[in-house]
Amino acid sequence: MKWKAGPPASTDQLQSYIPYLMNRLANRWNLDQNRDLSEYGVNNVVFRTLSVLNVYKTLTVNEIAVLAVTEQSTASRAIESMVTSGWVKREIAEEDQRRRVVALTPDGEALLKKIWPVMEKNYGRLAEGIDIDDIETCARVLAAMIRNIRQNDI
Amino acid sequence: MKWKAGPPASTDQLQSYIPYLMNRLANRWNLDQNRDLSEYGVNNVVFRTLSVLNVYKTLTVNEIAVLAVTEQSTASRAIESMVTSGWVKREIAEEDQRRRVVALTPDGEALLKKIWPVMEKNYGRLAEGIDIDDIETCARVLAAMIRNIRQNDI
Repeated sequence: MKWKAGPPASTDQLQSYIPYLMNRLANRWNLDQNRDLSEYGVNNVVFRTLSVLNVYKTLTVNEIAVLAVTEQSTASRAIESMVTSGWVKREIAEEDQRRRVVALTPDGEALLKKIWPVMEKNYGRLAEGIDIDDIETCARVLAAMIRNIRQNDI
Repeated sequence: MKWKAGPPASTDQLQSYIPYLMNRLANRWNLDQNRDLSEYGVNNVVFRTLSVLNVYKTLTVNEIAVLAVTEQSTASRAIESMVTSGWVKREIAEEDQRRRVVALTPDGEALLKKIWPVMEKNYGRLAEGIDIDDIETCARVLAAMIRNIRQNDI
């Protein structure tokens, strides 16, 4: 592994260093996404909260913070405002009466469906001209890296 | 491409969606890295500035902001404090007298060499157990995605 040899000394080395690449890419992607979402009156945190609730159905505020990649206080404020907007609701978990969870409302589901085409367009641009098998390999590598360094089980 | 079908509806779909994965990974990586760097009295922005100057030799403040993935005002303040610490110096570009650039000093180079083992250790943990060819494919995909959406030529 060439990275054992010390700090990157060439642009080629920098351009093959995953931490550098993922920061460049995540930053640009998030700025573009936030700009596009603002036309719908939402931001990245609201959008991610809608998305992860669509997958997991019910989640605690803590779990939403982890999955939406934001601080707990930010997730908490976003959920508060999403309850007010009628996009999510608070519930007691069926399997554990002590567990307070958040779930999508039909309006929240409808909003996610409405804004999803924006994401599809951006994702299409992101992935343009790249071999689908290579993208799948890349996703597998990133998921394995998350497992290697994550501190949360979800 | 399954993503044309609407928002992710399963954890499998979410776990194969590159924008989600890169945000999760970048967030965890940057938090860990910042914590480790703080023991050396530096932060991510200072570390990245040292790294990109080690590669490019001289860069404008704007270019450093792009490559170190930070806002221009943050890059500007970081460089100011790095000049004071003696890690970087301001120069007039050789090829263009109007171009003001920043370069590493010997102390800056020495600092980068000193902190690099921390990064190697973290990178080793990140990449543990993952096929090197797959990591290279992943890096190629991320670099291609950056080219697809970037707004800066560097």
